[in-house]
Amino acid sequence: MKVLILGSSGYLGYPTCCYLSERGHEICGMDDMSKEKFEGLLGGFPLFRPESNYFTYDYFSTTDFWNLSRLFESYRPEVIIHYAEMPSAPFSMKNQLHSYQTMESNVLGTLNVLWAMRLNCPEAHLIKLGTMGEYGAPDIDIEEGYLNIEHNGRKDRILYPKSGGSFYHLSKIHDSHNIEFACRVWGLRSTDLNQGIVYGVKTDEADRLSFHYDEIFGTVLNRFCTQVVAGVPLTVYGGGGQKKSFLNVRDTMRCVELAMLNPPESGEYRVFNQFTQVFSLKDLAELVVSVYPKGGDVQFLNNPRGDEREDGFYNPKNDKFKNLGLEPHLLSDVLLEEMFEMIERYRKNIDESVILPKIDWN
Amino acid sequence: MKVLILGSSGYLGYPTCCYLSERGHEICGMDDMSKEKFEGLLGGFPLFRPESNYFTYDYFSTTDFWNLSRLFESYRPEVIIHYAEMPSAPFSMKNQLHSYQTMESNVLGTLNVLWAMRLNCPEAHLIKLGTMGEYGAPDIDIEEGYLNIEHNGRKDRILYPKSGGSFYHLSKIHDSHNIEFACRVWGLRSTDLNQGIVYGVKTDEADRLSFHYDEIFGTVLNRFCTQVVAGVPLTVYGGGGQKKSFLNVRDTMRCVELAMLNPPESGEYRVFNQFTQVFSLKDLAELVVSVYPKGGDVQFLNNPRGDEREDGFYNPKNDKFKNLGLEPHLLSDVLLEEMFEMIERYRKNIDESVILPKIDWN
Repeated sequence: MKVLILGSSGYLGYPTCCYLSERGHEICGMDDMSKEKFEGLLGGFPLFRPESNYFTYDYFSTTDFWNLSRLFESYRPEVIIHYAEMPSAPFSMKNQLHSYQTMESNVLGTLNVLWAMRLNCPEAHLIKLGTMGEYGAPDIDIEEGYLNIEHNGRKDRILYPKSGGSFYHLSKIHDSHNIEFACRVWGLRSTDLNQGIVYGVKTDEADRLSFHYDEIFGTVLNRFCTQVVAGVPLTVYGGGGQKKSFLNVRDTMRCVELAMLNPPESGEYRVFNQFTQVFSLKDLAELVVSVYPKGGDVQFLNNPRGDEREDGFYNPKNDKFKNLGLEPHLLSDVLLEEMFEMIERYRKNIDESVILPKIDWN
Repeated sequence: MKVLILGSSGYLGYPTCCYLSERGHEICGMDDMSKEKFEGLLGGFPLFRPESNYFTYDYFSTTDFWNLSRLFESYRPEVIIHYAEMPSAPFSMKNQLHSYQTMESNVLGTLNVLWAMRLNCPEAHLIKLGTMGEYGAPDIDIEEGYLNIEHNGRKDRILYPKSGGSFYHLSKIHDSHNIEFACRVWGLRSTDLNQGIVYGVKTDEADRLSFHYDEIFGTVLNRFCTQVVAGVPLTVYGGGGQKKSFLNVRDTMRCVELAMLNPPESGEYRVFNQFTQVFSLKDLAELVVSVYPKGGDVQFLNNPRGDEREDGFYNPKNDKFKNLGLEPHLLSDVLLEEMFEMIERYRKNIDESVILPKIDWN
């Protein structure tokens, strides 16, 4: 298939290019390299990254509608995989400028993607990366897409309600609403992936990802593994009872492929929860420490993330990918050892000054 | 009280300045005059407008954070009335540029308002204008704020779900989510007003409002009254069975005052549905024609507004303002005659070319 990957140079974009290319798909990538800009200003550089990405042909932001529409018009993709968003909750809460930047890139960029599709390739399938974090921690099962409700004796079907914990999460919620509207009213088709917290250093097709471990761009398990290798305490926010959804980056590849090979109908907006396991942060930190040969310490920090709920019910569903045949790479000693081994190879480059959280929601 | 009115020169901003000023409040207004810019480009000029607005001191957009924050810092408002948004559904659906402009002004502008409050006046009360249109046409009662739901034997309380019918409506939905988050996590306080379709030519304090009758900025009853006076058919979209919420512009003044005099707690986000009556568009058009002495015709046009629902259940609640003592100005022959009289005075200026809808959602 003809695939356009927006955000093709990132942690997920690069291995997706490699994965789909090896399977015979035609790939065109674009990226504005904005994360790379902010790495230098804020977050710290990745511990390692791929040598280069031959799939990235175009360098501009999705907020640049004319370039975006020109690209859609000339390439005429059948599938658009949209990773081109600011990816960090702490970044979005740092101050007005970063909050604005996140909302602008994500909401206005995705709005442009919808208009560019409508004008140039209304039959294309938009696969959009969202996050399980958009749901917050509701007291009911987290469904995939819609919820049937009853109120005062009458029934309705609503988009599953979400409750963002940062302006980053909110930007993704807004995107989902805009995409659902474009499907409903314009007849576009889209799969919205609510992805769990992704981890991993490599895939079977890409031997080195762009790997962050800092407070801003590092995801939690990647951070824990780096911390244990560096010999510093693992930083658990709050009591660590927060349950979160996780998946190996190899499963991201397969999920995106499954969505692509099983497209929605024209006019259909569908939501898949894209994760394979649930852990509490405390359990995850303890697992990392127990598997790492030299062991390590776990430190409980005041939770900087606003009103994040640290205990209670958490039951997200992920039947849709299971039904499409996903065979998960569950977190194992082998997977953790693969991560330790790679991080140890770059151990001398770890900058401890970017590990502790500095951005507080309050 | 010290009141800051964002969007102080508009159809609602100007009479709100007059109304609150006459009641002894201190008023500071700002407006970027963007609607005036687009009037000339797109929508047609208002049939009449106030001579000037002595309450508007500052001219910039809410997307200009530094000026906005400076204003909040120097004025230190107790109440912020936020009307400063692009107000038109058709405008937002015209093309990418107008859609982008709407989303940028509204979502990023309101995000800036929240940051400016947090930095300069976190105790101030934000009164934000939304619209009943954000709800779409759900099959259940439309509550004010939250909804208690039950799913698979468990209970939760969610923000009342909304389903926008245009990017304009979506921009207001996004605003509401961002404001709710700022209240929940930062402890700001806000009243979100979901206003029905407002109509009227004057208030008791302002003898001439900025009155639009074109497809883009004119609200439906103002348009119907202008059409009947002009002797052209009243343009009902679709079959006209769509039920909508309405209120007289005098009631907008009183509702905003009631919200202001009864502020929420710190950290509280609350929603009031701000309307007084429900009509179907067909019934409303027939009422206008029946009250106008010379009568008139009603024309049913293909509905340009996407999937707008034209029949069925519609039961929005408006108890909160009733409980605060609102005494509505219900639509009457007297109110309609006041409108006819004023429009007739400016009849020769009616530009018939801006009346028919040109923007189609599809």
